[in-house]
Amino acid sequence: MAKGFNLSIIGATGAVGLKFLECLDKRKFPVRELRAYASERSEGKVVHFGGKPVRVRKLTEEAFEKCDIALFSAGSGVSKEWAPIAAKRGSVVVDNSSAWRMDAGVPLVVPEVNPQDIRKHKGIIANPNCSTIQMVVALKPIHDQARIRRVVVSTYQAVSGAGGRALEELREQIVSSVQGDGLAHPKLFPRPVAYNAIPMIPQKDAFNEEGHTVEEIKMVNETKKIMGDPSIQVCATCVRVPVRTGHSESVIIEMERPLSPTEAVALLRKAPGVIVKDRPEEFPTPLEIEGKGEVFVGRIRMDPTVKNGLAMWVVADNLLKGAALNAVQIAEHLART
Amino acid sequence: MAKGFNLSIIGATGAVGLKFLECLDKRKFPVRELRAYASERSEGKVVHFGGKPVRVRKLTEEAFEKCDIALFSAGSGVSKEWAPIAAKRGSVVVDNSSAWRMDAGVPLVVPEVNPQDIRKHKGIIANPNCSTIQMVVALKPIHDQARIRRVVVSTYQAVSGAGGRALEELREQIVSSVQGDGLAHPKLFPRPVAYNAIPMIPQKDAFNEEGHTVEEIKMVNETKKIMGDPSIQVCATCVRVPVRTGHSESVIIEMERPLSPTEAVALLRKAPGVIVKDRPEEFPTPLEIEGKGEVFVGRIRMDPTVKNGLAMWVVADNLLKGAALNAVQIAEHLART
Repeated sequence: MAKGFNLSIIGATGAVGLKFLECLDKRKFPVRELRAYASERSEGKVVHFGGKPVRVRKLTEEAFEKCDIALFSAGSGVSKEWAPIAAKRGSVVVDNSSAWRMDAGVPLVVPEVNPQDIRKHKGIIANPNCSTIQMVVALKPIHDQARIRRVVVSTYQAVSGAGGRALEELREQIVSSVQGDGLAHPKLFPRPVAYNAIPMIPQKDAFNEEGHTVEEIKMVNETKKIMGDPSIQVCATCVRVPVRTGHSESVIIEMERPLSPTEAVALLRKAPGVIVKDRPEEFPTPLEIEGKGEVFVGRIRMDPTVKNGLAMWVVADNLLKGAALNAVQIAEHLART
Repeated sequence: MAKGFNLSIIGATGAVGLKFLECLDKRKFPVRELRAYASERSEGKVVHFGGKPVRVRKLTEEAFEKCDIALFSAGSGVSKEWAPIAAKRGSVVVDNSSAWRMDAGVPLVVPEVNPQDIRKHKGIIANPNCSTIQMVVALKPIHDQARIRRVVVSTYQAVSGAGGRALEELREQIVSSVQGDGLAHPKLFPRPVAYNAIPMIPQKDAFNEEGHTVEEIKMVNETKKIMGDPSIQVCATCVRVPVRTGHSESVIIEMERPLSPTEAVALLRKAPGVIVKDRPEEFPTPLEIEGKGEVFVGRIRMDPTVKNGLAMWVVADNLLKGAALNAVQIAEHLART
């Protein structure tokens, strides 16, 4: 076998699919052959990898012939159906959807947090939810030192988390407001997203019987699984804001042992994949970190309202660390083993 | 004395000043004479009240001659200097700035929460911070029933909270982005506010030594004073989002006694100035409540991560209930006594 891996990208024309290609190229992933797949609707489209055009094919079993790693980002339905087929044919799937994340036999991995779980895979590895990834990258070094008991997180999530068409919907509303036509009618989102804050993610099937959204439950369950500690309590409120790319999070934690802001900064400085902004006025914002791969942590301060409390502001590019980059990092671990 | 009151509006040309005029008119406040004041820069401008033009004068002591009630919204500096002068001349000041809020001799009032404090005034009554007002309106009935011990709040604050020029800055950035010119350079805000989330309010002198912003400290201290309970702990993270008008808040509370979401909904249904959206998908958003005077509460749910925990989403028009309307409601109480 020649040096390099055969990769199939499933969902290659989507917002995250395109970022897969960008990350693989930028990080010089050892690719031998790269194939691109999408739904029938996108068949024949062309994407680019390493400056060369790649024709998009309709997804069939052929995608997993002589395929080492298959990166999926085509929605839960596609992953549910096709990931087992891919695994059976010998590919290792890195799946960006929520389909397999809570499956006991599927590792859920953030390489900075639980790289050891990668080797437990049986053909499928799940990439966590975007909001969860950036939070656990920031929390892991703190948890190791001071044991986090409870997290109260409120998110400020970007529109691109809902895909390319959602970004287009924001743009249409913004343009129509500038033209004085009011806001274009919402299609994907339950309310206009321009100039608004929508406490409901995703757009459909959002609420369980207790009134929590699917996104909030993901943050609760995925955090426990990735951190390998089911005792961590997470109270999440997930909100869409008219930011194009970059999720922000107000994260308030309660720890078993005391940890000062200065100590937290020192831990985060050493942590992989984290950039700390320790002067308060240096706080990160989504607009300025777009396109960057790290998790940015700022406004680290004491929460004096509870024993061993800390507050912080966590920002990352939801399409990169929150999705494509994390998956490509998992693929890099696979490539090294 | 003829029926009706002589009112002076200090800061009549500002975002809140204009809303004073609108609220007084809409609510048919018994006005005999209304005078409008602003800085020298705005002298000679014309505002409208009850369909009639009112010429804006430069603020001098004359403003408080035969003036029953003076509504101030011209910044802390003006209030600090002029409110005592007004009070000395026999006017009752309702001050929208932060200048007098934490003064022990000055009542800090939200009429739905602590109307009894109005009559303790010695010539000055302070109108609380916008973010605090809407939160305490939602929390008071819950506190009375179940005693709130701790509040963790993360805000999603509108640009109009920083005034008319801030709205213009958002508009310029939006327009330049639509025209493909990138984002116009920030002037008032520390970062571009369009497509962004800025965890720093206000724009200047924002952080104390512990890393909390002035706005966050206001929420901590004002909540205790208005609720008349210094034992309530508040952990606040205040964030500006590209919403024009309407502040939203993710509010997580811990109570001394258990209170179910159903019981909380029932309490809030009876509470003055509150509109409850009890079906999860009816959540309020800032865009749809703009121009309304009530505090909207939705997404009321259990927070199972703590004993006696509740989570909710609180939205109000920051220029109305968060500022001008609350002040006019205080003036109405004064007019009745």
